[in-house]
Amino acid sequence: MSRFWSERVHQLKPYVPGEQPALANPVKLNTNENPYGPSPRVTVAIENALKGSTGAPGDVLRRYPDPTSARLRATIARHHGLTPEHVFVGNGSDEVLAHAFAALLKHPHPILMPDIGYSFYPTYCRLFQIDAHTIPLADDFSLDLADYRVERAGLNGGIVFANPNAPTGRAVPLAAIEALLEHNRDTVVLVDEAYVDFGATSAVPLIARYPNLLVVHTLSKSRSLAGMRVGVALGDPALIDALTRVKDSFNSYPLDRLAQVAAIAAYEDHDWLEQTRGAIMASRSRLVDGLTAFGFEVLPSAANFVFARHPRHDAAALALGLREREIFVRHFTAPRIEQFLRITVGTDTECKILLDALNALLT
Amino acid sequence: MSRFWSERVHQLKPYVPGEQPALANPVKLNTNENPYGPSPRVTVAIENALKGSTGAPGDVLRRYPDPTSARLRATIARHHGLTPEHVFVGNGSDEVLAHAFAALLKHPHPILMPDIGYSFYPTYCRLFQIDAHTIPLADDFSLDLADYRVERAGLNGGIVFANPNAPTGRAVPLAAIEALLEHNRDTVVLVDEAYVDFGATSAVPLIARYPNLLVVHTLSKSRSLAGMRVGVALGDPALIDALTRVKDSFNSYPLDRLAQVAAIAAYEDHDWLEQTRGAIMASRSRLVDGLTAFGFEVLPSAANFVFARHPRHDAAALALGLREREIFVRHFTAPRIEQFLRITVGTDTECKILLDALNALLT
Repeated sequence: MSRFWSERVHQLKPYVPGEQPALANPVKLNTNENPYGPSPRVTVAIENALKGSTGAPGDVLRRYPDPTSARLRATIARHHGLTPEHVFVGNGSDEVLAHAFAALLKHPHPILMPDIGYSFYPTYCRLFQIDAHTIPLADDFSLDLADYRVERAGLNGGIVFANPNAPTGRAVPLAAIEALLEHNRDTVVLVDEAYVDFGATSAVPLIARYPNLLVVHTLSKSRSLAGMRVGVALGDPALIDALTRVKDSFNSYPLDRLAQVAAIAAYEDHDWLEQTRGAIMASRSRLVDGLTAFGFEVLPSAANFVFARHPRHDAAALALGLREREIFVRHFTAPRIEQFLRITVGTDTECKILLDALNALLT
Repeated sequence: MSRFWSERVHQLKPYVPGEQPALANPVKLNTNENPYGPSPRVTVAIENALKGSTGAPGDVLRRYPDPTSARLRATIARHHGLTPEHVFVGNGSDEVLAHAFAALLKHPHPILMPDIGYSFYPTYCRLFQIDAHTIPLADDFSLDLADYRVERAGLNGGIVFANPNAPTGRAVPLAAIEALLEHNRDTVVLVDEAYVDFGATSAVPLIARYPNLLVVHTLSKSRSLAGMRVGVALGDPALIDALTRVKDSFNSYPLDRLAQVAAIAAYEDHDWLEQTRGAIMASRSRLVDGLTAFGFEVLPSAANFVFARHPRHDAAALALGLREREIFVRHFTAPRIEQFLRITVGTDTECKILLDALNALLT
């Protein structure tokens, strides 16, 4: 606290990211990182960029990056069959979401979002002083988008949800999203698809028909570039224009030169994406079987993590026991989910280490 | 314009960064980039980081970076004889400034800043809805900080200026900053020292005595890392805490892994900094002599650019003529400075190409 702080700073409740342990080789299943590195093309692209076109190694780093990330946006547009004017990029999907909340979701009516979702959403609401109305997920933690229609939820300033949802991992079908869009044409529907490549259906094909649909992607999960901070928003050019106006009033160059070339290389290696996400989904299936065999209730997951609780073992105690074995999972203390663990799908070896440790803790 | 935009988006006047020409080898003297690349240690550090500690090349990129940038902040703290709690880092000094405006400069009274300064400041004011009162520079474009005292300017919500000032290049002496701090103890004084290493005196040593002083640095200029986006704020831990709270309510991980290691390597090579900034200051002296010989009025510069006008030649016409020769300088259309060109100090070769072109245009 300080008299020098702007009033709003006192009211903030900053997001707390998952721990980044300083250990040499932790089994790190707490921040939904991809166990397989990015496409090998990424390293090659960065090394080539460092060589530069003219001068000494590293000389290219003295120049500002392209503030519009034009090549990257063109690459992403091609990937999705859109134009670059449909594409916004930022410093991780968190920055993209922040700009979207500021640019598109601050209106006289409250925004709607699930009571259980990505915990950064309420943080943005406090930062930008956006009213939010939360709608409970069903008892089985499924998301019924019919709950968001005006006749049930009242007028809204926008609707935000993740698909698959975080931290539950549950997905909604595309038809449900389209039905919501049919009934909600006057405010933005933001679908956060950070985990979509692990088993959900993307809403991107609906962008052409719904000018109020904004879809947010990240390169941190399926493309394994968490270390490079690249996020994406896809939507009608008028929505993208709003994000660009806010970005250019905040920080013209959020993506450095190496992040831009890394992201381009990651998008260009479609085979690597297919191969690694396939491996993760296969490991997930085995992990779910193992947890279920131990008596865990595991929510159906379309993400690179599972959300599980044990009827007879306290989640906080299990997380602590795992931590003592240098195995990190995420435990949220929020209402309704305080008995769940969110466990990232690692390699099969990591999953086995986790299951062995749980076996020891449970017996 | 779109009905989906938040109201504020309509009111924004985004900052327009200098052009990044797509030409192969422009003489690019328009965005104050450093003509000498960063320390050779930077490339080595990035290549070592890419190799990672355990897995395949690039594997390190799959992990989130340290959200607190602890190693980088410790390195910067050591460099300045401060503690890591005195250091904030962000995605370029533009992001750092944006967070500072939001976190420390939004108060009931207007902030004070010069009428001619970094043109992003009024952009932040519109974004965060901060009232600003501008105080004219003197006729010779010098900044008299006595004008900012309460008896002349009234109560303020904070004071912001760049030293050396942008785009004039003129510096204020440290004694003037300290005298201002003596008279302004109740609100934050933000000194933007983006260009300080090229001839001005840093206010960092005053931080220990003035808890309301925030100094902002960038690695884009003297450390030649514009391509990697790293900015710094230095100040009392309570000020840094405010910036961290806003940052963690916006984007937990603004610096990617490679940006962090690049910045550390740049700070660790003090000899490179000394050598290259010395070369730039020597070139500046020769550039000023050349421009003066052509009849330009050149403001005294403590930056890696000069601000110059010709009594008989229109600045816009000169900028256009240079552009046709693939030489890029910056021309602002703002009142009082519309007859000036801001010319980055390049290599001696680039300065000579510029002078030769001007010679042709003037005669």
